[in-house]
Amino acid sequence: MTVRFAILGAGRIGQVHARAVASTEGASLVAIADPVAEAAERVASGYGCDIRTIDEIAASDDVDAVAICTPTNTHADLIEQFARAGKAIFCEKPVDLDLGRVKDCLKTVEQEGATLMVGFNRRFDPDFRALKKAIDEGRIGDVEMVTISSRDPGAPPAEYIKVSGGIFRDMTIHDFDVARWLLGEEVDTVQAAASVLTDPKIADLGDYDSVNVILTTAGGRQCTITNSRRATYGYDQRIEVLGSHGSVSAENMREANIELANADGFHRPPLLDFFMTRYVAAYANEIAAFVAALAGDGKTPTTGHDGMMALALAEAALRSVKEKRVVHVSEILDDA
Amino acid sequence: MTVRFAILGAGRIGQVHARAVASTEGASLVAIADPVAEAAERVASGYGCDIRTIDEIAASDDVDAVAICTPTNTHADLIEQFARAGKAIFCEKPVDLDLGRVKDCLKTVEQEGATLMVGFNRRFDPDFRALKKAIDEGRIGDVEMVTISSRDPGAPPAEYIKVSGGIFRDMTIHDFDVARWLLGEEVDTVQAAASVLTDPKIADLGDYDSVNVILTTAGGRQCTITNSRRATYGYDQRIEVLGSHGSVSAENMREANIELANADGFHRPPLLDFFMTRYVAAYANEIAAFVAALAGDGKTPTTGHDGMMALALAEAALRSVKEKRVVHVSEILDDA
Amino acid sequence: MTVRFAILGAGRIGQVHARAVASTEGASLVAIADPVAEAAERVASGYGCDIRTIDEIAASDDVDAVAICTPTNTHADLIEQFARAGKAIFCEKPVDLDLGRVKDCLKTVEQEGATLMVGFNRRFDPDFRALKKAIDEGRIGDVEMVTISSRDPGAPPAEYIKVSGGIFRDMTIHDFDVARWLLGEEVDTVQAAASVLTDPKIADLGDYDSVNVILTTAGGRQCTITNSRRATYGYDQRIEVLGSHGSVSAENMREANIELANADGFHRPPLLDFFMTRYVAAYANEIAAFVAALAGDGKTPTTGHDGMMALALAEAALRSVKEKRVVHVSEILDDA
Amino acid sequence: MTVRFAILGAGRIGQVHARAVASTEGASLVAIADPVAEAAERVASGYGCDIRTIDEIAASDDVDAVAICTPTNTHADLIEQFARAGKAIFCEKPVDLDLGRVKDCLKTVEQEGATLMVGFNRRFDPDFRALKKAIDEGRIGDVEMVTISSRDPGAPPAEYIKVSGGIFRDMTIHDFDVARWLLGEEVDTVQAAASVLTDPKIADLGDYDSVNVILTTAGGRQCTITNSRRATYGYDQRIEVLGSHGSVSAENMREANIELANADGFHRPPLLDFFMTRYVAAYANEIAAFVAALAGDGKTPTTGHDGMMALALAEAALRSVKEKRVVHVSEILDDA
Repeated sequence: MTVRFAILGAGRIGQVHARAVASTEGASLVAIADPVAEAAERVASGYGCDIRTIDEIAASDDVDAVAICTPTNTHADLIEQFARAGKAIFCEKPVDLDLGRVKDCLKTVEQEGATLMVGFNRRFDPDFRALKKAIDEGRIGDVEMVTISSRDPGAPPAEYIKVSGGIFRDMTIHDFDVARWLLGEEVDTVQAAASVLTDPKIADLGDYDSVNVILTTAGGRQCTITNSRRATYGYDQRIEVLGSHGSVSAENMREANIELANADGFHRPPLLDFFMTRYVAAYANEIAAFVAALAGDGKTPTTGHDGMMALALAEAALRSVKEKRVVHVSEILDDA
Repeated sequence: MTVRFAILGAGRIGQVHARAVASTEGASLVAIADPVAEAAERVASGYGCDIRTIDEIAASDDVDAVAICTPTNTHADLIEQFARAGKAIFCEKPVDLDLGRVKDCLKTVEQEGATLMVGFNRRFDPDFRALKKAIDEGRIGDVEMVTISSRDPGAPPAEYIKVSGGIFRDMTIHDFDVARWLLGEEVDTVQAAASVLTDPKIADLGDYDSVNVILTTAGGRQCTITNSRRATYGYDQRIEVLGSHGSVSAENMREANIELANADGFHRPPLLDFFMTRYVAAYANEIAAFVAALAGDGKTPTTGHDGMMALALAEAALRSVKEKRVVHVSEILDDA
Repeated sequence: MTVRFAILGAGRIGQVHARAVASTEGASLVAIADPVAEAAERVASGYGCDIRTIDEIAASDDVDAVAICTPTNTHADLIEQFARAGKAIFCEKPVDLDLGRVKDCLKTVEQEGATLMVGFNRRFDPDFRALKKAIDEGRIGDVEMVTISSRDPGAPPAEYIKVSGGIFRDMTIHDFDVARWLLGEEVDTVQAAASVLTDPKIADLGDYDSVNVILTTAGGRQCTITNSRRATYGYDQRIEVLGSHGSVSAENMREANIELANADGFHRPPLLDFFMTRYVAAYANEIAAFVAALAGDGKTPTTGHDGMMALALAEAALRSVKEKRVVHVSEILDDA
Repeated sequence: MTVRFAILGAGRIGQVHARAVASTEGASLVAIADPVAEAAERVASGYGCDIRTIDEIAASDDVDAVAICTPTNTHADLIEQFARAGKAIFCEKPVDLDLGRVKDCLKTVEQEGATLMVGFNRRFDPDFRALKKAIDEGRIGDVEMVTISSRDPGAPPAEYIKVSGGIFRDMTIHDFDVARWLLGEEVDTVQAAASVLTDPKIADLGDYDSVNVILTTAGGRQCTITNSRRATYGYDQRIEVLGSHGSVSAENMREANIELANADGFHRPPLLDFFMTRYVAAYANEIAAFVAALAGDGKTPTTGHDGMMALALAEAALRSVKEKRVVHVSEILDDA
């Protein structure tokens, strides 16, 4: 069986997923949709697929699944449209920046019995998977403390920041999902600190660039997340997990594994500096996992619920910063 | 000029400092005091010095400086006694577990014009010094975020925990001092989470074994500290500092720098697992710095004020855990 | 312009190149040839190409280039056949195990004006390329000493060893090519030592499993190569180059970059243990470089001459072992 | 029991051993001898010992052992003098540059029943000891191949080179001893290559600065040694041993274990660049081992025989370079 895909959105991330679909055994790319004709044509010619409108895709019998790679503010509507159209749905995070809207959308997905996988690429990174496997095999005993260091090479443009929902919903959200994945217990409380240190314009936009978060589970397990919008040495993505019998950590990735030594010392190249090169294997694995789920029991490794919970943690972190106190996740979920 | 020392207390840490004094150029060991005769004799015979009582030492003309290595609850009284006796004082942290008592004690020191250095050994570790030097030379630009991972191989005995003042005052206090040293700005607020994960007896004693702390300065710089009383792989002591132009980090130390490779992979030995082996160079450097200060302008690299501020951060962390909110350090200092 | 390929041989390495051709921009796979019908069909169906005989391919107007992935003893004949047929030729190393036959074959290639690239995959490995780039940019000054560690996880089967030409021609030959590539001067003399340490059956076959070689150029630059047929920790592939201003080295690759720490120490996974996973990027880059050469000036980065010289070094090493003396490469070339 | 030492020679290495003796439990420093009055006085005042002539020391009842730290050309005579005087002898390598003279000297030592330890400091380095221990515990199975990388930061002055006996007898000799220590079988044959690459003046002195050596045992075990007189990044001292079940390697040492990361990449400091800082622990362990041997059964971990064999390997390497052939160690020993 081959899963026939349409991609909605031919931008940067749409292209990533088009390539992933094309190179995945058991998947084929049938159609691309994008209001920008040139963008759609590039994907169509590169992968030999049709150009169709979104509505045409929803009505297409030869499309089994869609990958939603459009701007965030369209995600929830498209998920609902394609849930009703009976298509399996892969959607880039987040479902929506508003938690209430997410809840409603997921209700629709449930009512329609649709399959929805929300894209949290990091769970599919080979190194992070090996780390998770070590935990699952009991090699570090019970998980006690998770430490996530996640730093971008530079801040996104102001235009993007404006519509991003802020650093917690846009950047830390990946780390919230990783934390939930690794802690092995649902997060109970959130504490956060946030500053602007790299560029005062970010403060003007009401956002932060430097944040630290502590998550605690009901059982007392803790996770710290440290984020910065500026790491001159590249895209810094590290995880360390302390357990009762040991710890496991994942190292950063650099373009070339060479070392130069001279009178100034020992030098290794900077890190890969872009999520699309750093997570190239993760994106491919992610689509493969979606395809495998559709071919199997339909249970995707990440779900709409995961998308909602990561967003709830982001909301809680923001509230903690504003109210200078520990925030229970249940407060956020109850308010939504 | 030679600084003539007496050591008060011939226990584990007293022996460390006896050796440090004996091997420091410009310092000599004149006397040891300890109520346990055997302990005093061992040091006296090992280093060829006298055994005297504390009061005799205070009255000795041939003693320029004392190193206070007695139990914590005697520190403040002894500091006051020797300040009045006109001796230079090196005292192991903390001055006292009660912040009010520390304040009073430091007032006496000030009134007597005495020299007081409080021992924070980590500032004298060669690797951490090299890290600090890199910061001071501007190699990472402005400091933005400090990350301190500090884990003990195992919890101390219950008897010790009872009188320790709790994990924040006993263990994290070292990290609070390192944070103040590296942040380059005084800490403004403290947030903390604390759990018991390694041994329920620790909860019975009213203490914690697993804590995370976020410190923030007025300028928005942040520091996270992560502590556990159990790291099976050894005594974990890492620092990482992110700045505007780069980052600098210090690695852990292991007994032998070898690597074994076989069908199971690549293996390096565990970390040094005891503060007295891990920080052997730091203790020697610390006494050397005290001696250099006495030989120079009298300004010690760490002071009674540093001791007080680290304790205030510990109090703030504890209050944050109890009251589930961000705590201003000024609240603590005002209340003391 | 698209380079239209046929692959000769649908075995393990033929499949690697089929995938490389299929995924290379500017290249397309037109036909596969293999006497084993099943093997040919798997490639044909997997990549949507024709099955043809070798003679049909030589006569095909829609084929611009061939990749020769057949057994070694057919290489020279096929190179001559396709040189005469006017096709560009990519051939897996070696051209032949007999140096005289190689010389004759290259003469034919030259007479026909054919393009011949001999596959030395390591030159196309991203890490080794970055190392070479550092040298070419002058970052280590003049090259003085090259050290190549190259160890296989385990010996090949006896059947393979019998027809392999021995360890120098089969395994070290890759290192000889890397040495020539990095030394920046042609090798003048060869010294070698060889033993059997892993399996006495290898001695029965007249071969060795453990060898060390020293190469020296006329200018006195030196290279050591250390080989073993058994490295329990994986496929060990390291290069280190010392220059007048510094050194540069390339690290090994492992499947996952994680580290586990526990009471036994710090553990990283074994190395990738197979040339097809270790050099997956190299094989893709190699075909891309061949295609780029055909699209450009026709000068391939590795040539028939490179194939011949690496073989001459192998012969010299073997003679050095047998005659227990330093052997000049010119002796070998003159005798061929 | 305390071993009472006299040090012969108050130069650089004499001072190293004076400090080692002074800080070793069970050893005391009684006297120093040096024709340069100032040098002797500095040691005498620094460690509170007498100044005596060599002959006075030989006649001193309160001296149990001597450490010979005088110029190489005096070693053999002094060893004989003190063997006859009934003192235990620690002598810096080499016994003599002439193998015949060494043989004679050792004969005298044997006749007198004297204890002689020849100083090969590397065997006492903590990391190399840990590596050896791993081998001895069977953790890598049977030793098959040893790789020693040994590079100096810079060449010694011409005056020193003139009397040094050449690179093989002066520098590689340490590696020859390490090779013998680790191979677990006596070396049978030697092959070597040697060039001058760093400074033509070294060629004018008839010496080399860049050498590679292959040693082979009767059982086929191999060792490669790579030496250069110039490594800009510091004092490069690495060992790697491949065995039938795995490998073990020892890393280099640097002054501070920190890493700086910025837009140019990741940077660690250069290596310690001087044998007296790099091997500070080794020198202390070496004297402690000598003292322990005297307190025990009198068998020192390194002997006059070790000194002779390392010199024989140096001679063999030199002959291999001159005669461009494999040289048997037995040829050298027979000729001496």
